[in-house]
Amino acid sequence: MTQFNPVSEAILAELTAVLTPDQLSITLADRQQHAQDMSQHRAHLSEVVIWPTNSKQVADVLRVAHTHRIPVTPWGAGSSLEGNPIPLFGGITLSLVRMNKIVTLYADDFQVTVQPGLGYKDLNQQLGPDGLFFAPDPGANASIGGMLANNAAGSRTVKYGATKDNVLAMEVVLADGRILKVGSRSVKQSAGYDLLHLFVGSEGTLGVITEATLQLAPVPAIMSSAVATFADVETAVAAVVELRASGLDIAALEFIDAATSGLLSREEGVDWGENPTLLMEARRFAATTDTTERQKMWQTRHHMFETLRRVFVGHRWQLADVAVPISQFPALVRFARQTLQAHHLPELLVGHAGDGNLHIAIPYADENTRQQANLANNKVVLRAIELGGTATGEHGVGIGKAKFMVREHGGTAVNVMNQLKQTLDPHGILNPGKIIPAPGTSLR
Amino acid sequence: MTQFNPVSEAILAELTAVLTPDQLSITLADRQQHAQDMSQHRAHLSEVVIWPTNSKQVADVLRVAHTHRIPVTPWGAGSSLEGNPIPLFGGITLSLVRMNKIVTLYADDFQVTVQPGLGYKDLNQQLGPDGLFFAPDPGANASIGGMLANNAAGSRTVKYGATKDNVLAMEVVLADGRILKVGSRSVKQSAGYDLLHLFVGSEGTLGVITEATLQLAPVPAIMSSAVATFADVETAVAAVVELRASGLDIAALEFIDAATSGLLSREEGVDWGENPTLLMEARRFAATTDTTERQKMWQTRHHMFETLRRVFVGHRWQLADVAVPISQFPALVRFARQTLQAHHLPELLVGHAGDGNLHIAIPYADENTRQQANLANNKVVLRAIELGGTATGEHGVGIGKAKFMVREHGGTAVNVMNQLKQTLDPHGILNPGKIIPAPGTSLR
Repeated sequence: MTQFNPVSEAILAELTAVLTPDQLSITLADRQQHAQDMSQHRAHLSEVVIWPTNSKQVADVLRVAHTHRIPVTPWGAGSSLEGNPIPLFGGITLSLVRMNKIVTLYADDFQVTVQPGLGYKDLNQQLGPDGLFFAPDPGANASIGGMLANNAAGSRTVKYGATKDNVLAMEVVLADGRILKVGSRSVKQSAGYDLLHLFVGSEGTLGVITEATLQLAPVPAIMSSAVATFADVETAVAAVVELRASGLDIAALEFIDAATSGLLSREEGVDWGENPTLLMEARRFAATTDTTERQKMWQTRHHMFETLRRVFVGHRWQLADVAVPISQFPALVRFARQTLQAHHLPELLVGHAGDGNLHIAIPYADENTRQQANLANNKVVLRAIELGGTATGEHGVGIGKAKFMVREHGGTAVNVMNQLKQTLDPHGILNPGKIIPAPGTSLR
Repeated sequence: MTQFNPVSEAILAELTAVLTPDQLSITLADRQQHAQDMSQHRAHLSEVVIWPTNSKQVADVLRVAHTHRIPVTPWGAGSSLEGNPIPLFGGITLSLVRMNKIVTLYADDFQVTVQPGLGYKDLNQQLGPDGLFFAPDPGANASIGGMLANNAAGSRTVKYGATKDNVLAMEVVLADGRILKVGSRSVKQSAGYDLLHLFVGSEGTLGVITEATLQLAPVPAIMSSAVATFADVETAVAAVVELRASGLDIAALEFIDAATSGLLSREEGVDWGENPTLLMEARRFAATTDTTERQKMWQTRHHMFETLRRVFVGHRWQLADVAVPISQFPALVRFARQTLQAHHLPELLVGHAGDGNLHIAIPYADENTRQQANLANNKVVLRAIELGGTATGEHGVGIGKAKFMVREHGGTAVNVMNQLKQTLDPHGILNPGKIIPAPGTSLR
């Protein structure tokens, strides 16, 4: 591991020289505001927060950091769920929030070029009058840059793909300050190495995304929604596999287990009862097209974690995020329930079932329960990998999943990732401690 | 540039030691059969042809080559169009044709794991009874490995995406013989660097693909086809832009210019006349669903280059393959026609128009026409890049497009590609001379 240097007065002076005074802060309040995301991981303070307003400034800051070996952790909206933007080694927090503009709308091409600090909900609000929207929907008003860095996904991924499937081109600043363009506005491109997808999902460890051209979709005119409740979980998840094979043009397919359905019915006034429930959205099937009812149903789903947080006052959360091939989803759900029972933990399972993506929300308020939650999460992750799946379907590796990388990818693939990291960031300054596991990492 | 060594008797002995006698040949006949693809590029002989039958043998061969600095050029079906598998520096041709099995069909997941030497038409024939198919369709019976290496695409890409969008996981052997797995059978994965897409489209320069898990699609039950002829090219290509914006679920949208339509009408008995023509396939619109008629129409399109070759006896071909954002397709077609006219070349333009991908077939039978064809191709490529597009939509970089890489991506991005190449293949043995332009390459 590279030895990092502290942000000395001399380095602060170098940074100040390439910025305006309002673009840099060392106050405790500012550093605390950027010490933690929405995960359960421990907060950590950076030494200075910097708000660049253009790519050149990002490059200038990175050159200083590269020269002096100062860690740099990019920051979007702070809405990630795996500690991805926590500045584990201090140094610089590079907040992109002031780079939040639409650069160019290419309406005929269903494309838009944006800066990374723009929230995807804000983007979609601005695109509304053009009848277009950016489809990936991770929930909270994540920044576009954060979505790209984590390859975020959500309810609509079953139809529209994840963030990586909805980006065409980006501008990226490397650790040493070099600025490059990757990808193309042409939807087809077979012109050399796919650098675009190397940077997407790299969580700020290979470069800082300073601009992106996104693929948009037309807002569908008519959408039907359906709620189906089931007698038991097995039947519900078996139905997911069948629905996926049906050829129906499914735009969302969400699984909510009995306990969570009951909780949401009591708290939010939906009528799902204490039953395993599937929520579906699609074109062309007979069900409700009533806008108010649809909105209520999907709002309930989208605000579920807020509801859970409200109900479990004073609790923190271990959030599992695993995904498997769809045929293995029933087996995964079965294993997850058994594991939660064995560890005396509540069963709060929900999933972007159409993609084979399962989330488990595990509340804890004491150290013993935290440990049980951690053990249960580990078991579920290892089982998902055994079933041909992944440790993280959409939250990214961040801090919590680095220990599973070798199990999921094999040692050779992780070594190759490490080689690429060292090639593009030889001093290891970019978001250190994320993705690449430290040597000798245990699975506990 | 690394200095390569010839395949000496001693090295042949090392190779023979890890193979059976029928897996290696130094005969001129075998080497000639692997000296050229379907492009206009000059043939070049390798020194030895090797047919491995499993990943371990591929690794064994690469270890020998890595140690002794022998070039290794993978070979699939030899159907590529940009010189991609021509062994420019001699050494070893590594033919994957004997690794041509289906490994596992995951019917519930619409996935199949295959070896790289399997032809995609052979694969689809074997999948027929299961009602599934692998959607990318480059035309000739390309091998799956070649399609992955070149990120091949075709008529159905407008609906199903290119090869890169239809692969989930691969096994890859690195230059030094290390074997790794990349990607996941889970359709969602946000677990570290996207090594899968780094190897897809790398044309065998970063590693040899020895196994791949592909995403399949259900064979659509009902498809409509439509032919529309237009008074002039401008109107036809303007219609492409409108059709793409219509929201219609288009499965193919092909443009054929007047000269080519006339030629196909005369030669193949279709009734398109000497008119700019659009061929479309979609679900849910009123047009022909007659299977015979559909098949005739699409066969005519798919066999177009065979027809052209038959008509232009004794000619060789410069095949242009550029792509632009769909809004720029009319401007690209306009420029291409003007350019062909200025160089006194025939206008034979066709395109996967729905993707903004234009092909130009330029026949030549003498040196002057070859030069004119080359000049015209260069101009069209540069214009496509100016219009926000790419030097190659689906044929890959190979030999012919390396000179445009800096123009398309910028020097920094090409330098990064070079760094990645050096990291994964430090002696440069894998398919040398492809993708990465030699220093000082001119655009002529």
